Amino acid sequence: MRRLFIDECLSEDITIKGDDAKHLLYAMRVRPEQVFTIVDKESKVAQAKVISCTSDTVQLKLLQYIEDADTEAPIEVVVAQCLPKGDKMEFIVQKAVELGAASVVPVVSRHCVVKYDEKKKLARQQKWQKIADEAVKQCGRTIKPTVEAIVSLEQLAQDYTDYARFICYEAEDEQSFKEMLQSADSKKYLILIGPEGGFAPEEVQLCKDAGFKSISMGKRILRAETASIAALTIVMYEKGDLGGIY
Amino acid sequence: MRRLFIDECLSEDITIKGDDAKHLLYAMRVRPEQVFTIVDKESKVAQAKVISCTSDTVQLKLLQYIEDADTEAPIEVVVAQCLPKGDKMEFIVQKAVELGAASVVPVVSRHCVVKYDEKKKLARQQKWQKIADEAVKQCGRTIKPTVEAIVSLEQLAQDYTDYARFICYEAEDEQSFKEMLQSADSKKYLILIGPEGGFAPEEVQLCKDAGFKSISMGKRILRAETASIAALTIVMYEKGDLGGIY
Repeated sequence: MRRLFIDECLSEDITIKGDDAKHLLYAMRVRPEQVFTIVDKESKVAQAKVISCTSDTVQLKLLQYIEDADTEAPIEVVVAQCLPKGDKMEFIVQKAVELGAASVVPVVSRHCVVKYDEKKKLARQQKWQKIADEAVKQCGRTIKPTVEAIVSLEQLAQDYTDYARFICYEAEDEQSFKEMLQSADSKKYLILIGPEGGFAPEEVQLCKDAGFKSISMGKRILRAETASIAALTIVMYEKGDLGGIY
Repeated sequence: MRRLFIDECLSEDITIKGDDAKHLLYAMRVRPEQVFTIVDKESKVAQAKVISCTSDTVQLKLLQYIEDADTEAPIEVVVAQCLPKGDKMEFIVQKAVELGAASVVPVVSRHCVVKYDEKKKLARQQKWQKIADEAVKQCGRTIKPTVEAIVSLEQLAQDYTDYARFICYEAEDEQSFKEMLQSADSKKYLILIGPEGGFAPEEVQLCKDAGFKSISMGKRILRAETASIAALTIVMYEKGDLGGIY
């Protein structure tokens, strides 16, 4: 479930205007009846439902506060993972939940070895969601991260345009993750990690054209699942709540 | 293999004096014929052999430079992992090598479920070393990390006294990893991670008395193997070369 950070305090009825409303309407494409997790400026968390939309406002109704929300990170991180071999995705989903990810988006890119037909795509998504649900209980989180439907890299590049987006690229030798992350000023991050075979240069270009920053994780070659966990750990450490007391 | 950081440039014959010599002689207990990996002040790496020791000097002979050493981190991190269940140690060893650890020390603590007799201890160590050796090739490192012999927590606490040492303790609510790490000034780190059942309070006290800092990794409950990878990632990110270009 996506989270919406608002610049005011929570109340029964919330009217979103201005840039926030535009984001909701045109980037996140919200519609009446949709339910969101809202984080207010004091980091209080609640679920809210969209009541109505105009061309520049969104009206929300608060459904319930989420108690003990302090196990949730103060930022939203989406892990976009190109399909790895074997059962590695299960592992990545489990660790992503523990480390505080908001959602996992499985992505099909050129060098992915596994191929699923439509029926299998849905079955996998459901299986991964189940693993996420189990991990939530184990690690004491209050918000259930979602495993989204499998998308193509092209599709992903068009979405999440209001996030600070990074593509971990093993051939990147100019931009370090640390530098890029420290200069980013956002509460919403997306990290894209390749499959075992890495990204094709055109795929990296596609993402860059869409607004992603291509970054290096350092000099050692990391396996897909290691890169995924390390990248999430780094974002949560630098911008979130990992390694801290809040 | 332990690494020795020296404050001069490498040469054929190296004489270590002063505090460095004392560390070598009394903390690391070096003896003639021992072989070390040396990192000089320009981060050049070489193997060297101990030729002779007096009460305050150590004489080394350079054996060979290690080429392409830029896949090695500029710091030394030891992962001390209390024995987890099942085959999780294999996983931890593999990821620790990829992420740049210098060595892994398997530790027996009170809440470890697995028990090995002496014969099995050696067999496990050899198996884990093999996994480390395979991971080295895959990730392009030049220095082979060692999997040390299994030790008791009591033994571990007496060793590595010249390292900045941290014990990841889920009940710690005063000292954050970030704060402790940022204020640490060392090239040598040891992180101690508990088994599934965590540490007994007396074990944490024992480590604190020995000079460890007890730290919190944040509010979510991490599985043993997740804590291990995340802690190593954090040290390598904050103090080493993960997420950077050098």
